[in-house]
Amino acid sequence: MRVVDLIRRKRDAGELTREEIEFLIAGYTRNEIPDYQMAAWLMAVWLRGMSQAEIAALTEAMLHSGQVLDFSDLPAKKVDKHSTGGVGDKTSLIIAPVVAAGGLMVPMISGRGLGHSGGTLDKLESIAGFNVNLSLADFRRVLATCGCALIGQTAEIAPADKKIYALRDVTGTVESPALICGSIMSKKLAEGIDALVLDVKTGSGAFMKKEEDAVRVAELMVETGRRMGKKVVALITDMDQPLGRKAGNALEVEESIEVLDGRGPEDLRELCLELAAWMFYLGERAGSVAEGKKLAAEMIASGRARDKFREIIRLQGGDAMVVDDPRRLPRARRTLEVPSPASGYVAGTQCERFGVACVVLGGGREKKEDSIDPAVGLVFHKKVGEAVKKSEPLCTIHYNSETRLAEARKLVEEGYRIEPQPPCELRPLVHRLIGA
Amino acid sequence: MRVVDLIRRKRDAGELTREEIEFLIAGYTRNEIPDYQMAAWLMAVWLRGMSQAEIAALTEAMLHSGQVLDFSDLPAKKVDKHSTGGVGDKTSLIIAPVVAAGGLMVPMISGRGLGHSGGTLDKLESIAGFNVNLSLADFRRVLATCGCALIGQTAEIAPADKKIYALRDVTGTVESPALICGSIMSKKLAEGIDALVLDVKTGSGAFMKKEEDAVRVAELMVETGRRMGKKVVALITDMDQPLGRKAGNALEVEESIEVLDGRGPEDLRELCLELAAWMFYLGERAGSVAEGKKLAAEMIASGRARDKFREIIRLQGGDAMVVDDPRRLPRARRTLEVPSPASGYVAGTQCERFGVACVVLGGGREKKEDSIDPAVGLVFHKKVGEAVKKSEPLCTIHYNSETRLAEARKLVEEGYRIEPQPPCELRPLVHRLIGA
Repeated sequence: MRVVDLIRRKRDAGELTREEIEFLIAGYTRNEIPDYQMAAWLMAVWLRGMSQAEIAALTEAMLHSGQVLDFSDLPAKKVDKHSTGGVGDKTSLIIAPVVAAGGLMVPMISGRGLGHSGGTLDKLESIAGFNVNLSLADFRRVLATCGCALIGQTAEIAPADKKIYALRDVTGTVESPALICGSIMSKKLAEGIDALVLDVKTGSGAFMKKEEDAVRVAELMVETGRRMGKKVVALITDMDQPLGRKAGNALEVEESIEVLDGRGPEDLRELCLELAAWMFYLGERAGSVAEGKKLAAEMIASGRARDKFREIIRLQGGDAMVVDDPRRLPRARRTLEVPSPASGYVAGTQCERFGVACVVLGGGREKKEDSIDPAVGLVFHKKVGEAVKKSEPLCTIHYNSETRLAEARKLVEEGYRIEPQPPCELRPLVHRLIGA
Repeated sequence: MRVVDLIRRKRDAGELTREEIEFLIAGYTRNEIPDYQMAAWLMAVWLRGMSQAEIAALTEAMLHSGQVLDFSDLPAKKVDKHSTGGVGDKTSLIIAPVVAAGGLMVPMISGRGLGHSGGTLDKLESIAGFNVNLSLADFRRVLATCGCALIGQTAEIAPADKKIYALRDVTGTVESPALICGSIMSKKLAEGIDALVLDVKTGSGAFMKKEEDAVRVAELMVETGRRMGKKVVALITDMDQPLGRKAGNALEVEESIEVLDGRGPEDLRELCLELAAWMFYLGERAGSVAEGKKLAAEMIASGRARDKFREIIRLQGGDAMVVDDPRRLPRARRTLEVPSPASGYVAGTQCERFGVACVVLGGGREKKEDSIDPAVGLVFHKKVGEAVKKSEPLCTIHYNSETRLAEARKLVEEGYRIEPQPPCELRPLVHRLIGA
């Protein structure tokens, strides 16, 4: 088998066998296949796509490039949720304790902020002492103790994905449905889960701006998971404006605690209940999604989800008192209100602009090595459809340094579209269900 | 300017500016841009193509990555011929002395065998002592002395092409019209020539099997050369069967001498006259192509081309006595006749098979490091359209080792298609003229 022949076949829109894909991925992981050949193959995949059989083979090859966790000895079903990322998307912080409180186990391996989108690990680290770098042994221990643990990808989990992702990032081959599916599913299936709920975002703040692209990726992931014997559904959800009213690491932890308190913004709360409901249903803790939703709401109303969050934080070394006193979270020294340029209604947003503004403020990374400022971010006073008067604040910028404040402000201003009439129709929170 | 943005633009079928292409090529040549980014860009170019303006920019960037020779002080027009390669294509060995004898200068930088196709340098090296690795100073000296010199690409000439070609070879990005054009034209324009005749092969023994592909590359090369102020024409010529009756390094030198002697196979002689005629015409030694052809024929008939070949060999350190006594060339120890499986006519050939058979016998390289056996090769007794009796020899295999003889024989057998009726129509030697 010659690598160049496999590159040429994909270039010519041909199909690769399971053995050929396994050969490529294993060889690349072992540094036997050079970066330049993998880069050419990835570009050919980007432009030619992959069949469902190829994607399944890719996912399995990446999955088996490292350790596959086995929690089958633990007494509950293991379920997880994965989101493709957006602005203000903090559902993991809420759902994980809700679902663990409801009796399922959530072994969640998450990521860091990527481009304009935030990352669960960065958010958790705004809680003093919270350790996302647990060993796999500690991950298991925390999971067994409280039903949930939240960590970052370790060297043992899908090393092929880590290596390929770094290469995709610098070779313009990120946004490929096949490669996105392989990357996400190999990591998630390595968690030793029974079921998975996918939250595939679409809209101006998502990586997949067009709904058809989100649906395509969702279908590939659902099918790939099923081929490997897992229960998987995907919700195509709206990311045409920020989720909730806060974006930025500590601000999002604060808002998550509001929801666990039974308060918080309606859209965020609703999406969390919906996602948790599907997890309860697939994890067989509820006979229907409606029943699952009731169970999720109960976990919040009873304060059990809040207790669970406190327990998780404590077991992972963090300051659990933030749950009762969010003022313990890092806070930016200064704020700036961005006023509305006109009276009218918020007709829509260029949501990605808000995400980039957070990065510009220091809340995300422009280069891998950048350290981040957990305190900075945005508080959105107006959501799409809401009325606003001229000069009334649209958004408050939380910042620590004047450097690049003007740039962030400009992005926020560009992010809002104000019109005299309210929008005829509001986009639904959940656009579609795939695989249900 | 970020490399990844240029990769993405090409991936999305966008156009790059002259400055962007210059940035990529110069950066890669200086080892500032890594192989993996160039590989991804090359694959995007392969699949998306390039505009004529992009190809011109690519060619110029590659040309100026090294030294551009200047022979303007030498007293004659400088012309060259380049062939895209095939089986039995030894026209350079004949044309170079013919055209130099006719009063033009031919500063020819050639290549080695590539895949199934032979290379001028390998053929010349079957002459004992012939040195193709002249310094540029010696190249100039030989050229000034006898009007012709034949060398290999040096480190000073288009280093970007050398580096990019090596990468294309292992990343499945060889057969791109844009990249082929940039590679050929950057090297040829670095020779300091006034005019160039391109022999673009098409058919089963060519790299471009389909005539439309050959025409496309020819058009790109003609236009690129003209944009840079050179006279360029391209002949689309037939490579659906071997050119002449011999393939293999020493065997091809022998057949070249036959043509310089006024003998040799009709197709080879005719094509050489045609190509030389165009060189004389573009180099202003003849007022028309017909006149150029007459001049070329005279150079052969008078023995002046033969004398010139002797002179070239001598000046480049080779054994010039081979011209009068071809038995001095390396000869294989053994031969094997491949008989016709049936009576009938040669209806066509899978010409590439013959080229691969030569490589299998040791006459070409499977890996860059392989050394080659100059003596081995094939002698074709039957050309397309000729009658053959069952068991009459179609081809004689010249070989030195039994290893892989069976494989070569099988390839030769597969190469011939014998049918009861003669083919209705023979393919012309010259299919088309581009840019005339």
